Amino acid sequence: MQLTGKVVIAQGGGPTAVINQSMVGAVLESRKFPQITRVYGAINGVEGIVNEQFMDLSQETTNNLEKVAATPASGLLSTRVKPDEKYCEEIFKVMKAHDVRYFFYIGGNDSSDTVRIVNDYAKASHYDFRAIHIPKTIDNDLMLNDHTPGYGSAARYVSEAFIGINQDTRALPGVYIAVIMGRHAGFLTAAASMAKKYEDDGPHLIYVPERPFIVDDFLADVKEQYEKHGRCVIAVSEGIEDENHVSIAAKLSKNVEVDAHGNIQLSGSGALGDMLSNLIKERLGIGRVRADTLGYAQRNFIGSISNVDQIEAREVGEKAAQYALLYNRDGSVVMDRVGDYAVDYRLVDIAEIAGKTKTMPAEFLNARGNNVTDAFKNYLRPLLGTNYPTAHRLRAPMVEKILKK
Amino acid sequence: MQLTGKVVIAQGGGPTAVINQSMVGAVLESRKFPQITRVYGAINGVEGIVNEQFMDLSQETTNNLEKVAATPASGLLSTRVKPDEKYCEEIFKVMKAHDVRYFFYIGGNDSSDTVRIVNDYAKASHYDFRAIHIPKTIDNDLMLNDHTPGYGSAARYVSEAFIGINQDTRALPGVYIAVIMGRHAGFLTAAASMAKKYEDDGPHLIYVPERPFIVDDFLADVKEQYEKHGRCVIAVSEGIEDENHVSIAAKLSKNVEVDAHGNIQLSGSGALGDMLSNLIKERLGIGRVRADTLGYAQRNFIGSISNVDQIEAREVGEKAAQYALLYNRDGSVVMDRVGDYAVDYRLVDIAEIAGKTKTMPAEFLNARGNNVTDAFKNYLRPLLGTNYPTAHRLRAPMVEKILKK
Repeated sequence: MQLTGKVVIAQGGGPTAVINQSMVGAVLESRKFPQITRVYGAINGVEGIVNEQFMDLSQETTNNLEKVAATPASGLLSTRVKPDEKYCEEIFKVMKAHDVRYFFYIGGNDSSDTVRIVNDYAKASHYDFRAIHIPKTIDNDLMLNDHTPGYGSAARYVSEAFIGINQDTRALPGVYIAVIMGRHAGFLTAAASMAKKYEDDGPHLIYVPERPFIVDDFLADVKEQYEKHGRCVIAVSEGIEDENHVSIAAKLSKNVEVDAHGNIQLSGSGALGDMLSNLIKERLGIGRVRADTLGYAQRNFIGSISNVDQIEAREVGEKAAQYALLYNRDGSVVMDRVGDYAVDYRLVDIAEIAGKTKTMPAEFLNARGNNVTDAFKNYLRPLLGTNYPTAHRLRAPMVEKILKK
Repeated sequence: MQLTGKVVIAQGGGPTAVINQSMVGAVLESRKFPQITRVYGAINGVEGIVNEQFMDLSQETTNNLEKVAATPASGLLSTRVKPDEKYCEEIFKVMKAHDVRYFFYIGGNDSSDTVRIVNDYAKASHYDFRAIHIPKTIDNDLMLNDHTPGYGSAARYVSEAFIGINQDTRALPGVYIAVIMGRHAGFLTAAASMAKKYEDDGPHLIYVPERPFIVDDFLADVKEQYEKHGRCVIAVSEGIEDENHVSIAAKLSKNVEVDAHGNIQLSGSGALGDMLSNLIKERLGIGRVRADTLGYAQRNFIGSISNVDQIEAREVGEKAAQYALLYNRDGSVVMDRVGDYAVDYRLVDIAEIAGKTKTMPAEFLNARGNNVTDAFKNYLRPLLGTNYPTAHRLRAPMVEKILKK
């Protein structure tokens, strides 16, 4: 019943801070099974398979695997290639030639779609083969998963950035905007909310792609918060859209860049933040307005990785190997929340995950669509890890004035 | 000989991740001296003095002071106000009214200039008064200091960001630019160099304000590195200037914003990064070019504070109190490197620090002006703290190809 042959593990799409935990989990678990002749890593995702760029991870030391597991961003390198029928044919020529019988692909919804296509092709070719998708994405937008490996660490980075930014804008007031990754789902932007400890702390406003971004409403919100607190800290998703579902960033961009999956480039440019900043200066007449685009540090910052995220990422990799090698099954590993706080794993049909996008449920967003609810904060809190920092304020009494000018 | 009266502590200019360590060091030390009737914190720097906004830190708990010390960004809030003669007169009316005899101002070179003006005014008014400048700045640009409190933590943040960014661009190649804070001095930008572990790691190019930024040279450098490595990771100071000392960012900016010290706004906008990114796309024809502006997280990120920086920031605050309260002296606390690695402190005349800027010495920059030397790395290494992370790579052998297409 168990297939004898090789394992290939690959990583696709944007990296995360814990994607190598999943890779190492799958490698270490696969190496325990006697029917596995070798464990290969494909370099640059499916490109590495087609080009026969395999690293023999059966010859990697356990120590170095553990060190790589703690290192952010795909250790096997990545790709944005989305295989079509022709590409899959090439993949199978290589799989057969190398006697590969198990394929573990770590990625988001685009990568899960790749696993689905490759697996359909295997079935159609009557090649005996198990393919499992291992979830990862900082966007937290995979169907069925309570949350995805990579999200907790990115969320921790964003919220830690806002802890400092909130203190900074208390010290030197003004309006501050941070543009955060998230094309269709606002989960990562919403994580900024965890920086708010005291009533007047920021972020004061949070805008996500799930709700239409109306410029006049936005300006009214900013004015209200600025008048109330003397400052305003704002978190905005890069993927915010107007009421007609037109991306606000795309409206601005002169040279729109599109990838193989048809996605417009949103990250790696300060255009959206600068536009919002100018809008506030011009329409509200506020002098000190600053906009940062948090950028690539969000998905791979080594200094604020969630230990809960690390453990879960390791486990989804291990579970993928167990489902394939012990149970001879295909599919996508899904993470369920089964306690407060505990998780468990199951394998689902890849078609339930592939190419679909989960967005924030309505209960996580307030009625006006400019902030999150406590339900969201309760959802996120355990994912940030066990030693999450918090900001403290002086609270001594003020001195009575003498000159009273 | 020892003056009986109150202490006022204030914080000025841009926050750092450890500026509250210095504040708490000065508060805790001042509270030990019997001649000190109260320890006040001025809210919003010198503005708080003029407006009699004092918090009575003699009534703050030691626990809360320690918690605030570990929190980034000025706990007493900050200001960009630079006092003139009239303003100093107002300051002294308040100082006299409250019987303030000691003034500790934590800040950079603009703030040290404030201390100098205030102290000159005190002498001219025959008011018996001790004023000490406590150094802080992420820019590391204060004269005489080997380095300044705040720099180590900001440097650690920048280098940790580049560890992830370097891995990210290995996984998904292209050109990546990060614009880093630093108006006149390139120390913080140069910190990106610590992310380079292996020969082909980024950052591959580093541009600082100390050397003229020549567009054609820049493009030739990028082309060379991109052809060599298939990718290019670049660190650029926000303050880079052309051969005529004209700021590259200011050339681009339509609405130039100028603060009370005559400084042009450089941070809080993605304009410089986007311009350099477009230049590479257009002139070199490289498709995937991304630019991030690291932004305000650099100076107040709670997740990657250097423990060495924390200790030193605490010590400069303590030493300031000791110089004033034990020795009845004025001046600026300076940090010397006295071992490999050890520091010691001394007090210098404020005029030696005030309004001056230290830049990177020639031995820290390579001949072409597009990278740092090992001398710089040896200088920076101990400042990053004792548990600095490092990235690891897989190093198993590649598998021989079978199909060899």
